[in-house]
Amino acid sequence: MSHTERDTKQIIVDTAERFFRDIGYQKTTVADIAKSLRMSPANVYRFFDSKKSINEAVLERYKREQEEAIAAIAAEDRPAAERLHDILATSFRLNVARFAGHARMQEMVCAAMEESWDAILAHIERFDAVLRRVVAEGVASGEFRPVDPAHATGCIRTAMIRFMHPLLISQCECIPGPSPDELIAFVLSALEARPKAN
Amino acid sequence: MSHTERDTKQIIVDTAERFFRDIGYQKTTVADIAKSLRMSPANVYRFFDSKKSINEAVLERYKREQEEAIAAIAAEDRPAAERLHDILATSFRLNVARFAGHARMQEMVCAAMEESWDAILAHIERFDAVLRRVVAEGVASGEFRPVDPAHATGCIRTAMIRFMHPLLISQCECIPGPSPDELIAFVLSALEARPKAN
Repeated sequence: MSHTERDTKQIIVDTAERFFRDIGYQKTTVADIAKSLRMSPANVYRFFDSKKSINEAVLERYKREQEEAIAAIAAEDRPAAERLHDILATSFRLNVARFAGHARMQEMVCAAMEESWDAILAHIERFDAVLRRVVAEGVASGEFRPVDPAHATGCIRTAMIRFMHPLLISQCECIPGPSPDELIAFVLSALEARPKAN
Repeated sequence: MSHTERDTKQIIVDTAERFFRDIGYQKTTVADIAKSLRMSPANVYRFFDSKKSINEAVLERYKREQEEAIAAIAAEDRPAAERLHDILATSFRLNVARFAGHARMQEMVCAAMEESWDAILAHIERFDAVLRRVVAEGVASGEFRPVDPAHATGCIRTAMIRFMHPLLISQCECIPGPSPDELIAFVLSALEARPKAN
């Protein structure tokens, strides 16, 4: 892809994002996006085969931003429990900033859940890979009990779903319960190394 | 309320349940329920002030069934961790049996989430009360570490939401992760008493 083509692709994603946020994913058409760029729809289709693919590209950006933020935390030279805490707290914070209370943004996520499940699974797998690495390091150093890192990662992500899933953050707001920090602390205590009894 | 009135109320709830399951909550009217009982709508309204109240009575039955099942487990003379496991596993099993894959049943829950939030909160509070009692007993016996039972209960319920919430059980089916038993074991390990280090 040439430099200009990359730019064009980027501009299409920027424009689509604006439409999805302002008008909503369902109401936006590829023709709307093309028209506002003074392009033909056929030209947009040269870059994206469907509106679904454009939505995937928009959401991909948010996911990459989150993945880069948590990978940076994972690479820090700090206790594994601290890094896990910050990874989970940062994921929550970014999801709140993007999605909480934004019906249009949540519509994009709903559409992806119906149309782009593979992209969501790929994101979950990359999220898990970062958690898994930190869990494995905590086990290796003796900071955590000797759990299987892949299994523990699935448990941590599932136990935190109320604060990790872009839609549940808003949907569960009226259910009483712990704060994100409190739940993170509780979940991490499941990993703590247990000194041997006397 | 006389014996006959209690029977009539019961029959209205039975009939409504059948309509909600077969036709759907949204499509059912109080007139439909009354007609199939050869009653006037006004007679139904003597017992329930709205369709929402009838839905609450239908869901109340399911909730009572679950609450009685878990209260019986809580009262057993067994280690607290075993009882907590069985309470969570039983709640999951009853919710699966009722709601998983049943779009009409899930519609009733959705309606309650929009119209009957107080009834849902009351159910959560009764669920929590059972968990809290078992957590407190586990703390008192030294089986669990000295957590605050109310706080730990909120954490357990929130960490298990993927397997406790009637709608999430189906919605999260395609997300990879632990089985209910695996997540329960992970969550309960957060409560385990830690022997003092030497």
